[in-house]
Amino acid sequence: MERIRIETEKSYEVIVGRGILEDCGQHILQIFGRGQCPYQKVAVIADDLAGAIYGRKVLKGLREVGLEAKLFTFPHGENSKNNRVLNRIYEFLVNFGLTRTDLIVALGGGVCGDMAGFAAATCMRGVDYVQIPTTLIAQTDSSVGGKTAINSPFGKNLIGAFHQPRLVICDIQTLSTLPGHIFNEGMGEVVKYALISGVSLCQASEFSDLDLMTLLEQADTERYLDRIVSNCIKIKADIIRKDEFEQGDRMLLNLGHTVGHAVELASGYTVRHGNAVAIGTSAVVKSCVRQGLLSTEVEQRFHELLKRFHLPASYRGKSMTELAKLASVDKKRDDQGIQVVLCHGVGDCRIRHMTMEEWDRFLTA
Amino acid sequence: MERIRIETEKSYEVIVGRGILEDCGQHILQIFGRGQCPYQKVAVIADDLAGAIYGRKVLKGLREVGLEAKLFTFPHGENSKNNRVLNRIYEFLVNFGLTRTDLIVALGGGVCGDMAGFAAATCMRGVDYVQIPTTLIAQTDSSVGGKTAINSPFGKNLIGAFHQPRLVICDIQTLSTLPGHIFNEGMGEVVKYALISGVSLCQASEFSDLDLMTLLEQADTERYLDRIVSNCIKIKADIIRKDEFEQGDRMLLNLGHTVGHAVELASGYTVRHGNAVAIGTSAVVKSCVRQGLLSTEVEQRFHELLKRFHLPASYRGKSMTELAKLASVDKKRDDQGIQVVLCHGVGDCRIRHMTMEEWDRFLTA
Repeated sequence: MERIRIETEKSYEVIVGRGILEDCGQHILQIFGRGQCPYQKVAVIADDLAGAIYGRKVLKGLREVGLEAKLFTFPHGENSKNNRVLNRIYEFLVNFGLTRTDLIVALGGGVCGDMAGFAAATCMRGVDYVQIPTTLIAQTDSSVGGKTAINSPFGKNLIGAFHQPRLVICDIQTLSTLPGHIFNEGMGEVVKYALISGVSLCQASEFSDLDLMTLLEQADTERYLDRIVSNCIKIKADIIRKDEFEQGDRMLLNLGHTVGHAVELASGYTVRHGNAVAIGTSAVVKSCVRQGLLSTEVEQRFHELLKRFHLPASYRGKSMTELAKLASVDKKRDDQGIQVVLCHGVGDCRIRHMTMEEWDRFLTA
Repeated sequence: MERIRIETEKSYEVIVGRGILEDCGQHILQIFGRGQCPYQKVAVIADDLAGAIYGRKVLKGLREVGLEAKLFTFPHGENSKNNRVLNRIYEFLVNFGLTRTDLIVALGGGVCGDMAGFAAATCMRGVDYVQIPTTLIAQTDSSVGGKTAINSPFGKNLIGAFHQPRLVICDIQTLSTLPGHIFNEGMGEVVKYALISGVSLCQASEFSDLDLMTLLEQADTERYLDRIVSNCIKIKADIIRKDEFEQGDRMLLNLGHTVGHAVELASGYTVRHGNAVAIGTSAVVKSCVRQGLLSTEVEQRFHELLKRFHLPASYRGKSMTELAKLASVDKKRDDQGIQVVLCHGVGDCRIRHMTMEEWDRFLTA
């Protein structure tokens, strides 16, 4: 079991291990000193899939330590991440009698974590929450860093808040119950991390001098999943420490996300987030090679990884010009243009500001 | 013109003066160093009354300093403070092309400030906003301190966030256009402040040794309105400095609010907030006298002030037992009971935790 500290205004830990979800109650008590835990009630918000597989175990783990726990589930999938389901969550919290000194637990994938986190950020002007992510994409990316949101008809994640969790419990064992395409989707974000950070954080002895990219290329993914997940979290922790509210370095994590969000939007959210990030990253990588910023060797390695994890490299539904236009409502936009992340090499990604014309030319020239 | 500093994680100023609303653009630029203002677009959110009277002046003031400003108005009144209107605000912001480095201005009463503030807290995970309150209740209370919220079918202000404004512009002249009952409603909160703080903050020479309560009793309210408003803001500033997120002292500001919220709820929001606070404070004052915690002399003075400002002291729609029960869904509740504010004297209010049974007995015995 590994503990990674996330240093934000209110710091917290991410615990990575196998079979640790059942002891969630113990882990939550350990946030506080002996007998100091303020929570009495715990509202567990889960998507129906995670709820069906892990709901009981989590409720049991919470009740074992004397907490009063109740489960709320909603249909899984990006289509649930909206105002209507959010209101049902508020209603559940009120009917359960949750107070400001109680706790919300988000159990499931990224949709669940984002939405339950936003409910925690906005119910009674903020209550504590704990993330128990059960998908690869949620464990490596969305559960850490306090970004919460719902989608609106006007844009993905357009309504949201920064609200850090009190604890994140990453149980690697949950990844074994994932359907293949959901697991692979998560690899879309993992490959993004591999491009962002060249620094080796991997502690598996035989790979200790390898960066994440090389680890992904060489190792048995299943066997070294703990290392891969904790590696991604450490890269993210390192970036968030410097920039909690995404005013600088944190934008690096958005590599591939601007085109990625446009693909999600264009497809009516039928293209999953991790796949969209793979497509978006691929678009940036290709453009960077075309502009002479990146070697074809890295492009080659990157596409090999996409193939290995059955990730898409392009989207046929819309032209790149159309996607560039769709990307213009992105949150990363300002009045002069847009902040984009370019890739100059493994471990050498850079933020650049472009006008919308430069951005369109960059992608399509 | 007076400047009061509000010391929170991100500190800001409240400017109190007459005719200062027209120079709002100048005041906004002054937040930043020369040429450092990041804003290009300013979305002015106003209720229809404030929009009709002051919309043009504010737009002009913003455009004069080179900002691109656009006005959105919605029907005034507590009934607008909901999810439906909030979504129309989001839509306006997106269509206007607002970005994270732009600004929202809330122009109007408490409903407008709370809702535009919540839109600012949650649009793109947080954009800056400036409050230009135009009612007495908004100037003395709701525009300062960063509490933002909307109502939901499950409770008043149940959905909300802490999000501090970058600046508050209190133009006392706007109070002269208020209908009498709206002005008096504001006095409900002002009288509450008078009970909370006995410390004199009044700087009008002839009243320099008077506390707010005595000032209200003796002075010509109209003439000394600047002093009264800035006095209330200073009391609030003092409390918020110690407790930004309402975990202790800030609860003092909730004197009269627990029963007050119950009255609002029971009346379907036909009883206005300031009037409900007067009723709630009156209920607490009476109960404190009955329990021997407060002298009848203070009760007498308090009720004289209510009469002077035509404020109600009781609500006939529901019994006190029923109101006590309605108050039990209050945000100030925890699993063991409720935090209530008792009045032991002018300038001597205290927070006490009661079980729901104690609370019921306190109000009805």
